[in-house]
Amino acid sequence: VTENTLGSVGETAALERIFPRLPHAASALVGPGDDSAVLAAPDGRFVVTTDLMVHGPDFRLAWSTATDLGWKAAASNLSDVAAMGAVPSGLVVALAAPAATSVTFLEEFADGLREACSEFAPGCGVVGGDLSVSDTLTIAVTAFGDLEGRAPVLRSGARPGDTVAIAGRAGEALTALRLLFEKATDEHGNATDAGGIRDRVMPQLRPSPPIAAGRIAALAGATAMLDVSDGLAKDAGRIARASGVALDLDPALLGDDPASALAGGEDHALLATFPGDVPEPFRAIGRVTTGDGLLVAGKPHDASGWDPYADWSGRAG
Amino acid sequence: VTENTLGSVGETAALERIFPRLPHAASALVGPGDDSAVLAAPDGRFVVTTDLMVHGPDFRLAWSTATDLGWKAAASNLSDVAAMGAVPSGLVVALAAPAATSVTFLEEFADGLREACSEFAPGCGVVGGDLSVSDTLTIAVTAFGDLEGRAPVLRSGARPGDTVAIAGRAGEALTALRLLFEKATDEHGNATDAGGIRDRVMPQLRPSPPIAAGRIAALAGATAMLDVSDGLAKDAGRIARASGVALDLDPALLGDDPASALAGGEDHALLATFPGDVPEPFRAIGRVTTGDGLLVAGKPHDASGWDPYADWSGRAG
Repeated sequence: VTENTLGSVGETAALERIFPRLPHAASALVGPGDDSAVLAAPDGRFVVTTDLMVHGPDFRLAWSTATDLGWKAAASNLSDVAAMGAVPSGLVVALAAPAATSVTFLEEFADGLREACSEFAPGCGVVGGDLSVSDTLTIAVTAFGDLEGRAPVLRSGARPGDTVAIAGRAGEALTALRLLFEKATDEHGNATDAGGIRDRVMPQLRPSPPIAAGRIAALAGATAMLDVSDGLAKDAGRIARASGVALDLDPALLGDDPASALAGGEDHALLATFPGDVPEPFRAIGRVTTGDGLLVAGKPHDASGWDPYADWSGRAG
Repeated sequence: VTENTLGSVGETAALERIFPRLPHAASALVGPGDDSAVLAAPDGRFVVTTDLMVHGPDFRLAWSTATDLGWKAAASNLSDVAAMGAVPSGLVVALAAPAATSVTFLEEFADGLREACSEFAPGCGVVGGDLSVSDTLTIAVTAFGDLEGRAPVLRSGARPGDTVAIAGRAGEALTALRLLFEKATDEHGNATDAGGIRDRVMPQLRPSPPIAAGRIAALAGATAMLDVSDGLAKDAGRIARASGVALDLDPALLGDDPASALAGGEDHALLATFPGDVPEPFRAIGRVTTGDGLLVAGKPHDASGWDPYADWSGRAG
């Protein structure tokens, strides 16, 4: 039996097999299949964010299943919508894949998109997309959200006296990535079977961002918020810079491994500042003070982090 | 003098150089720099479309300048917004490039985005994006538009008796592509200097879609419309199928080279059907009749066209 590939069945037939598996968006007035989709924007504005995932720097097919990739592509973009205090309403998904990619792979990718929307943002779905051919598997997702009449929560509103709080994990995705590099590569640096450690690497392969916490933060009066995708240190530094304040984190509140919590990227936690009580599921990890930049226990801390151009090499993957 | 590359300056510094060159969107309530942008959607809905451009199947760097690529990425997406009868309001642009790509290249890409928005959709601009690293230069654009209170013009509304009409070019992009393959490749199939024929290949490298005609068609009561990106034959067949009718094109109205007009992709003309008078700049090229599929001079015509998976090979580029 020869498996059907994108190259053998063509774009139109591949799309016909994918469409039924995509999550439906309740806000879609015109869904996939025309030149453009039409989405409802009930409050006269919409939130939009876009993100690329590229084979090599962003994922490895030896570690991630197609369903993992669909899940992560949706989850990471939904998190950027949530970080504005918005409720996700829709996605468009563009995928470029080698012609030898199986249609089954695409179907399973669609399953991951659907499962993540169902888990994190019921009612959010895929309203459009594009398929293309490329030597490098590449996923481009653009996500939309509704602010429900509220002001967006920007990075620039933190004020001295606010409590710094986090919802979700910090450092677990980095710990999982280290485990993958340690246990799931051979001597040539190529990935091999990661099955034996799969449960422990899920924070990296299938992140579980606290999407609903974005709306909760906005309703509780969060003054600033962002998605922690490049490490808590770097992203806390971003709030500090945008707001013209300092963020002073308490390492005793950063879990068992504060260094990994500060350094680790791709957790997709939500970091926010609150002038009053910190709402569940957020937990306090520090204070906003006058000054500038990131402090840890009152002392300046390096706020650099992951840079895709400076840190990635094709050999290391 | 060593030129700065994405790898040497890093993502943050590269973005700082690009941002000032990007076109500003009048509808941006929150622009680039936060987790998401916020756009105005005055009529409570928005139009959205997404498209990938991949080095190899979609463009060659030996033929296209960075400014050409930015122009074409914007123009082709704006055309899909116009094809709904909408007015373009904003773009998000994600780009994955080799680490050795010069920052100057990215700046010139931004120039192309700005020039195309200025030419085709003043007030439309870039509201967000993403930069990533990839061995394969890949551009993902998502475009938004405003329907100004009108119903979207779908592919499915053509009715027998309507006039079929086109705005923009048909076949010129294909003619230009043939010229590139004939004159701008060496014996190994690699591209070489295309300078001597640049004026004649502009319909392929810098398409000029009739963006403003989308709104004109909607105001004139167009019953169906689409962007002609895969060839007039294939795209006319799409309106016929979606509408449950036949489109009968008159070859005498298809210019000097009807075969190229029918076959040629990437023109980004607008094809529409009108129950009454055909508004400028549209020109009549046929009639809607009962039946199904594409007819030319009353006879069934092959409505297949370009398929990126079936038709592309890495060697041929």
